[in-house]
Amino acid sequence: MASQPKYLTGDPAAINEFIDKFDVFLFDCDGVLWSGDHLFEGTVETLELLRSRGKRVVFVTNNSTKSREDYRRKLAGMGIPSEVDEIFASAYSSAVYISRILRLPAPRNKVFVIGESGIEHELRTEGVPFVGGTDPALRRDVTPEDFRAMADGSLLDPDVGVVLAGLDFHINYLKLALGFQYLRRGAKFLATNLDSTLPMSHTFFPGAGSISVPLVNMTGETPVALGKPSQAMMDAIEGKFQLDRARTCMVGDRMDTDIKFGIQGQLGGTLAVLTGVSTKEHWEKEGAEVVPAYYVDKLSDLRAAES
Amino acid sequence: MASQPKYLTGDPAAINEFIDKFDVFLFDCDGVLWSGDHLFEGTVETLELLRSRGKRVVFVTNNSTKSREDYRRKLAGMGIPSEVDEIFASAYSSAVYISRILRLPAPRNKVFVIGESGIEHELRTEGVPFVGGTDPALRRDVTPEDFRAMADGSLLDPDVGVVLAGLDFHINYLKLALGFQYLRRGAKFLATNLDSTLPMSHTFFPGAGSISVPLVNMTGETPVALGKPSQAMMDAIEGKFQLDRARTCMVGDRMDTDIKFGIQGQLGGTLAVLTGVSTKEHWEKEGAEVVPAYYVDKLSDLRAAES
Repeated sequence: MASQPKYLTGDPAAINEFIDKFDVFLFDCDGVLWSGDHLFEGTVETLELLRSRGKRVVFVTNNSTKSREDYRRKLAGMGIPSEVDEIFASAYSSAVYISRILRLPAPRNKVFVIGESGIEHELRTEGVPFVGGTDPALRRDVTPEDFRAMADGSLLDPDVGVVLAGLDFHINYLKLALGFQYLRRGAKFLATNLDSTLPMSHTFFPGAGSISVPLVNMTGETPVALGKPSQAMMDAIEGKFQLDRARTCMVGDRMDTDIKFGIQGQLGGTLAVLTGVSTKEHWEKEGAEVVPAYYVDKLSDLRAAES
Repeated sequence: MASQPKYLTGDPAAINEFIDKFDVFLFDCDGVLWSGDHLFEGTVETLELLRSRGKRVVFVTNNSTKSREDYRRKLAGMGIPSEVDEIFASAYSSAVYISRILRLPAPRNKVFVIGESGIEHELRTEGVPFVGGTDPALRRDVTPEDFRAMADGSLLDPDVGVVLAGLDFHINYLKLALGFQYLRRGAKFLATNLDSTLPMSHTFFPGAGSISVPLVNMTGETPVALGKPSQAMMDAIEGKFQLDRARTCMVGDRMDTDIKFGIQGQLGGTLAVLTGVSTKEHWEKEGAEVVPAYYVDKLSDLRAAES
């Protein structure tokens, strides 16, 4: 059994020692910095504290519908100042993976996108050609002619070498059928992230993983996922920031995504907060496999370091 | 290892003995009677031979988009005369299961349908109330207002007690989100069938099982399936025709659906034909678990019984 985490709340000396151990803090957002529309008290000040001590903060999110610039605006709207370069979202992670790791040779290097504009924006930024996505030509009912044109290939772009599936609020039969045809013809299968549900308005809706799962069901193939807890995302973060994993700490509220992501990435540390999904019982229970290195009741407890 | 099947092609005495053993023949269609748009030679005559000997023939199909009447017309269009009462499709199977086996007490007995008009027709025939389906109000993009109205329940029908998912060429985010909300609120989860793909135009497209799999992914729950090889379908067939399983034979081309369906249903016999998906290697290989009792090269080989 893994050893139990160190509790930092109310212990300024331990908090200072904790902060000094790291140069980079990777932050999950919902459940850590805010919940739904509610910004937690002290979030902005805690981030400022870390920045004032020369730490790099990175916001790591599985949200695939937003580009980094979209997400920066969202943070600003919540009252959190940030730079685009501090943001690492799964759409960007996917674009970086395709352009810098996959590096498919032209001409068969186009991406068929199932998803929203955030993915398109990031692919464009990385110079990756794509089809699909928000193309209005695909936002329609499938027709008998489509079936024939998919069967004979005339509706397919022969240059597609990747299918990338993220959260798509405009998912339909035609897009699923096209994605399947491309995969059958040998395209690589990527997913921005595999979250089965999307928390919103205090309930849950279909998440990105429930948009790609029909393709998994049809092909029997599992996509490379570019969101937490996939280590493909960690590799992309490391490549981008040239960070020293030993001096990097992942901060999050969910054991099965955030803390697991940090542990599997062999980061120097993981910090759990109790303002989101997981509770202490998650790591205190018999046989718990994912145990953070540190925990606090709430993120702003770190501000005690100032005193 | 199961014993090997008896080969009937070219053996009139064995064919006669085979036919005499059964009162009812359950037929898979595509790959047995026809392939795609091509009716196999001798199909009509073989069915007539069985009928002339007093056998009941039943066409058993996982096609969930068609009602029995739709399917009768399809058979007629292929040149095969039939009666509605000889047809057992998964939409009908689902309607019968809901009305005669589930028998949910009113008012919470409405069905939220993900699927096409065939399902609606059969539910109506069985007197089962439903919402969703081909309702044009659901054939649209999801809106921010929808998320709120699903979260507070105002977009939901409180009388829905079942979610029934079949093949839906008009699947969208709104329908998946509604289906998920109903399941979260305790609705029973049914699927017309779980075929991952739909064979058409000599290739494959998303099947009914790939329409319901997002709901499986979100809830972690497996639906009761009313198509082959689910025994819920066999129970519905038995209930409808009051058949003697020992004197019933399943005829099909696929080991993993048709023949498995007959074996698990403890029918008196199973007959494989080699005009569809499966080949002899499927049962001759080491460790084969699904082995038919009989096989012929093609269905019309049974006509040798006449001589």
